[in-house]
Formats: sequence, structure tokens, C-alpha cells
Amino acid sequence: MSSSDLSSSSSVDEAFVQVGQQGGVRTLWLNRPRQFNPLSEGMLDALDAALADAAQDASVRCIVLAAHGKAFCAGHDLREMRSQYRKDYYLELFNRCGRTMQSLQQLPVPVIARVQGIATAAGCQLVASCDLAVAVDSARFAVSGINVGLYCSTPAVALTRNVSRKRAFDMLATGRFIDAATAEDWGLVNRVVPEAELDDAVAFYTDSICAKSPAAIRHGKAMFYRQRQMPLADAYPYAADVMACNMMEEDAAEGIDAFIEKRPPVWKT
Amino acid sequence: MSSSDLSSSSSVDEAFVQVGQQGGVRTLWLNRPRQFNPLSEGMLDALDAALADAAQDASVRCIVLAAHGKAFCAGHDLREMRSQYRKDYYLELFNRCGRTMQSLQQLPVPVIARVQGIATAAGCQLVASCDLAVAVDSARFAVSGINVGLYCSTPAVALTRNVSRKRAFDMLATGRFIDAATAEDWGLVNRVVPEAELDDAVAFYTDSICAKSPAAIRHGKAMFYRQRQMPLADAYPYAADVMACNMMEEDAAEGIDAFIEKRPPVWKT
Amino acid sequence: MSSSDLSSSSSVDEAFVQVGQQGGVRTLWLNRPRQFNPLSEGMLDALDAALADAAQDASVRCIVLAAHGKAFCAGHDLREMRSQYRKDYYLELFNRCGRTMQSLQQLPVPVIARVQGIATAAGCQLVASCDLAVAVDSARFAVSGINVGLYCSTPAVALTRNVSRKRAFDMLATGRFIDAATAEDWGLVNRVVPEAELDDAVAFYTDSICAKSPAAIRHGKAMFYRQRQMPLADAYPYAADVMACNMMEEDAAEGIDAFIEKRPPVWKT
Repeated sequence: MSSSDLSSSSSVDEAFVQVGQQGGVRTLWLNRPRQFNPLSEGMLDALDAALADAAQDASVRCIVLAAHGKAFCAGHDLREMRSQYRKDYYLELFNRCGRTMQSLQQLPVPVIARVQGIATAAGCQLVASCDLAVAVDSARFAVSGINVGLYCSTPAVALTRNVSRKRAFDMLATGRFIDAATAEDWGLVNRVVPEAELDDAVAFYTDSICAKSPAAIRHGKAMFYRQRQMPLADAYPYAADVMACNMMEEDAAEGIDAFIEKRPPVWKT
Repeated sequence: MSSSDLSSSSSVDEAFVQVGQQGGVRTLWLNRPRQFNPLSEGMLDALDAALADAAQDASVRCIVLAAHGKAFCAGHDLREMRSQYRKDYYLELFNRCGRTMQSLQQLPVPVIARVQGIATAAGCQLVASCDLAVAVDSARFAVSGINVGLYCSTPAVALTRNVSRKRAFDMLATGRFIDAATAEDWGLVNRVVPEAELDDAVAFYTDSICAKSPAAIRHGKAMFYRQRQMPLADAYPYAADVMACNMMEEDAAEGIDAFIEKRPPVWKT
Repeated sequence: MSSSDLSSSSSVDEAFVQVGQQGGVRTLWLNRPRQFNPLSEGMLDALDAALADAAQDASVRCIVLAAHGKAFCAGHDLREMRSQYRKDYYLELFNRCGRTMQSLQQLPVPVIARVQGIATAAGCQLVASCDLAVAVDSARFAVSGINVGLYCSTPAVALTRNVSRKRAFDMLATGRFIDAATAEDWGLVNRVVPEAELDDAVAFYTDSICAKSPAAIRHGKAMFYRQRQMPLADAYPYAADVMACNMMEEDAAEGIDAFIEKRPPVWKT
């Protein structure tokens, strides 16, 4: 589904996810501000469609995941969940949400979370699942399902791959909020700035990535996550193969020649 | 063995581990203060028994691992170890100690280390093996076996799963102490406070955990450690299944309903 | 090849790697200062030879990896790489470089990076691959291949095992420099000092390690990396076996007896 399909199939104002693009930067806006942008079935559908569309559009060089309203994302839609009461329903819901989270890593381009407010439960998982994250200094983060009797198990998968063990255990067992500065200190987000500087901080990453070779970014991102799950003795040959393939791309030859000739490179891919 | 059995089978004053309980908080006190609470065979026996007892007592909602005296725990009992000189003895000793450490993670309730003094070698491993840790600001931590010609191999297993690689290598190769602030910065402990605030800081965690659904905590803790050892593509379906089971518990329905109705939940499990 | 062979086979001034030793401390100096010490084929050959020589010399208790000139190491030799254009050449080059990096961990003694200037791409990987690292406060670190269209895939293998996920992704996708204080905060280096204190900071580690039992260090270093790649339930029995073997070394008996008798130990191994 392209961004124009999204516009035509429903009022842009009412779309679960609003899609915009400037240059190579595709921005996806979670758009249920009054409900704190819950990951309802409708939101997950819209997010999946928007990500799939971005993945197959060569003009997209990076994705910003943003949100309208005061909250970034409050996690699953508890009312919707309570309207069902079957294990197979929940299992499918959590599995599909997990697939959405994994799809962020499978995209050929980096995804940057633009966190303008609180991110809780699966909303915190969404931040953890992005490649990079920038947050406003008033943002707060929690995996708070434990407060309603539902331990944030799938969010824990992403969180424990971002922050160290005792810190993750603390957040998951207490459900407490951490502030943005703590999230940066613990590695959950890359950078924290005052609200007025949020877009500039996001632009630092999008500008930087848009200036890179698309092929090199694509090779690198896939390799980044895959090698980390391998023993060292397997990770090295795999990474060497990816890097040798990257060297055979026109862009690497151009980039190195430009570097030696002290001129800016012109990417072909 | 229940706590009353422990009291009756030996003088409480002389027990290796003193057991107390207030509300849902079971506190285990290492009780060889003059020897710095070494993990002798007697201490490991008592600790195993106390943990097994806590595991099967539904009134226990969390465990505090505390220690009497100036030191938290100085690790293995070197005199006892030197009184033997057989590889099979040492192998069994280190293996059983490793099983005790792993049993902390296998408990259905969280374990919080209350670190009031130095924690060295297997004592540092004990802190690393707890789910959470609070330390007094004068506490210090070392894996100091290397100073007596015995690299802290089993402590390294726990330490390297708490702190990052070069920091763990530093501690293990130099045997040096790090102070409490460094331990917090590196993720070995969750919080560091002045001595007068130690019990309040522990109570923050125990109060928080006791207010949660026991079933949700039990589901979550087991999942927390298990999923971290899986590749992402396996961790997500496993976590989704745990979370779907958690949703079918009465407590999740109650917790979510209470949240929607803006009232405190009443747990059933 | 011994250090004297290195001296005789080429002018010491021109050797890719200059080798020195004081007491148990073998220092390897990368010696192409004007080219920023690139990991050319010649440099990798010399480094492999110097490491192999150190590995089989019982007088070597630890290795300092140092560099002449303003830069520590600028990574691969881009000119040399561009003079070839065959995937199998690149594959072999990256694989052999990966083997050199892995060999640092396979050595029986610790390796300390002495970082006196910038470390980029495979130069940053070299720092990440050492067991310990000390840096001057003006040092900077980058995995900057992405700037020339070549994502630092093999450096990512080492980097992602030193620093947390989002920080590593940031460095690899932007190619930006981080300063020494950030590198310390993120765990890429152990200590950052003013230039005048660099050798003292290195000596802290070399003095400490030279005072330890060689057998204990050897047992421990091999175990350190291997156990970290195992599930907990396998890591513990493995570490217990290593530690039991370590206990059967003369040095452990001596070290523990010395500790009990409050005298300094005299190592036999």
C-alpha cells in the first residue's frame, strides 16, 4: 500500500498512521493522540502496511517513527484486548506484534524513533526495537504491564537487548517510569534534547544517513543484527563475506576513490 | 525445611542463615559475620535449604538476601578449600555453588541483594546472581581470586552477564575493588544509598513487588532469563506464549478491568 | 619469529611492528606513523608474527599494543585495497584480519591497547578486540567506513561485543567520531587520562597483571571469552571445571596459603 493509497482509502486525519516524506526521509506518525496511540489491531495493520510500503520504495533512505499528541505510544489497546478472552486470540495478537517489531530490524533502511512523550509497555518496546532513538527531555519510559497483572514479556525481549540485565529487571518488575536522561544513560535512546531541538536532533541522524551509500547501509544493517546472535568464530566469516560483497558495489569503489582524491563521493546505488 | 525447622534444629544465633519474614518479604541473613560470611559447605547447605523453603511457600512474595556484620560475603571458604586437595572435590564444590547461584534465577519470586559491606569473589557473584541489588555507598566489589592464584571463573559467569566486557575483564584480571558508585554505573547494582537509607531503598523494591500479581511476576521472571539466551526469532514466539498464558490468569483480567475502571486491583493468585 | 629475528630481517626503523620488552611486558608498536598505521598486508603479517612470537615466549606476561605517531590506527589500507578488485581477494583480506583480531583473545596473556590518538574502522576494531584499553583524553574513535561506502562489518563484530546496541548502531551508521570520555562511558576503553599520564595508566594494568600467577591468568582469559558464548547452564559446569583445574595448580595452593599466613605469594608457574 503506498502513502497515496493510505490517503485515499481513509481520511488522512483519521488514518491510524499518517505518512509523510521529505527527501529520503519517510516519516510515519502514529495518529491516535487522544488514546495515547495504542497498538490496536488497526494501528498494527496501518503500521505494517506503512513499513511494507517504505521497504519497497527506493526513494526512502530512512524512516522516522513519530507520534502525534502528548504520548508517544502507550502499548497495547487494553480495552480491545479485554473484549476478547481466548488464549489463541492473545497468542496471535502478541505474535503479530512481535513480527511488527522484528520487521523494523528487517527493513533495508534505518528506523529512528522520535519520542516526544511517554512510551510505555509495547510503546517502550517500539522504541527499543528501532535502530536509533531521539527523545525529548520530558519523555518517560516504562514497561508497566506488571501494574495491571500482565508482565511485559514481549517488550522484555526488546528491552533486554537494549539495556543491561539488572536495569531491565528493575523496570519490568516494578513497572516504574525512568526519565529520558536515565534512558540515555542506560542506552535505551541515543540522544535526549529539549523539545525545541527535537527535530534538529532527529535531522542529525536522517541527514547523516541520507548522505551515505544506500547499498552500504543495507548490507550493514542486516549484518549488524544477524552477526550479534552468532558465536564470534561464525560472526567473523559472515561479516567478512558481507564486507567483501559491499566492496564489490560501485559505491565502495567510488567512495574510496573520492576519499583518496579528496573530493565528495557520488553514490550510484 | 521451614523457617521454624531451621530455628528448632540449631540455635538461631548459630544458624549459617537466619530467616525472617515480614508480610510477603522473606529475608535470609548470612550469619557468619566474623568470618565475613564465607560460602562454606555449611553456608551453601543452609542457603540452599532456605531458598528451597522460600520457593515452596506461597506467602513469600520476594526474598531479600542480606548479611550480618561488616562484610556482605567474602566468597568461598579458603581454609576449608585448602583442607582438601582433590580435583573432584573442587569440581563438586564449584558445581554445587554454581547450582545455588542458578537457583536464585529459578525461584518464582524476585531476589534482592541487600549489600551492606564488601562483596568479593563468589560474594560478588552472589550479588550478580540476584535479580536486583541495593548497596550502601561504602560497599565495595571485587572478584579477587586472581590475587591468590585462583581466577574467579565461576564468578565471571555471573559478572559478565551483569557488566560489559572490558569492565569485567579489568575486575577479573586485576582483582581490584570497585566502589559502590562504580558498581551502580556499570550495572552490577541497581541503587546505592547512604547506610541510613539502605532499608528504605530495599523496601522500595519489596513494596513494589509485593503490590504486584504473584502470577504475573512468576510468569515474567522465568521468561526474563530464558528468552535472553534465545535468538530473537525464537524469543518472540516464546514470550508471546508466556504473555498469552499470563493474559488468561484471573489477575490480568482483574488488573486491566481495575485500570479501565480507575480503581486499585485485587489479585486472586 | 622472535623479536631479534624481526630486528635482523629488516631495519628496526622500518619494521611494520617494533617490538620491545621490559620485565614481563612485551610492547608492540605499530610503526607506520605517517600513514596512520594502516592494517596493510605488511602490517597484518608483522602483527601476526609478533603475536605468535609473544604467545610462545614464557617470559611474556602481558602485551601492550601501542602505536607511533599521531594516530593509533586508521584501519585498512584503502589504497592497497583499491589496487585489487576481486571479491576473493577482499574475502581473504577481511577473513585474515578477523583471524588476527580473534588471535588477540586466544593469546595466553592479556593484551592492553595503549591508544594515543585516533582509532578508526579496523583500528577501532583493534581497540575493541584487546582485553583492556587505556586512552589519552584527546583520542577519538569511529567506525567510519560508511563514509566511503563501505560499512564497517568486521569492525562491527568487535564493537557490538563492547558497547550496547543503539550506541554501536549510531557509530556504524553515521561514521561519526566519539571522544575518549564517551568511549570510556560506553565501555569501549577502560580508562582515559591526560597524555602525561598515559604510560602510568598502562603500567597500572601491566604491573597488576605481572604480579599475578601466570597459570591463573591463562586459565581465566581463555574461560572468560568462551563461557560468555554459552547458555548459563553450560557456562557454569565449564567454568567450574576450569576453576577446579586452576585449584590443582601449585600457584593456587601457594596463593591461598600465603593469604592465610598473611605473606606475599611466590608463584611457581
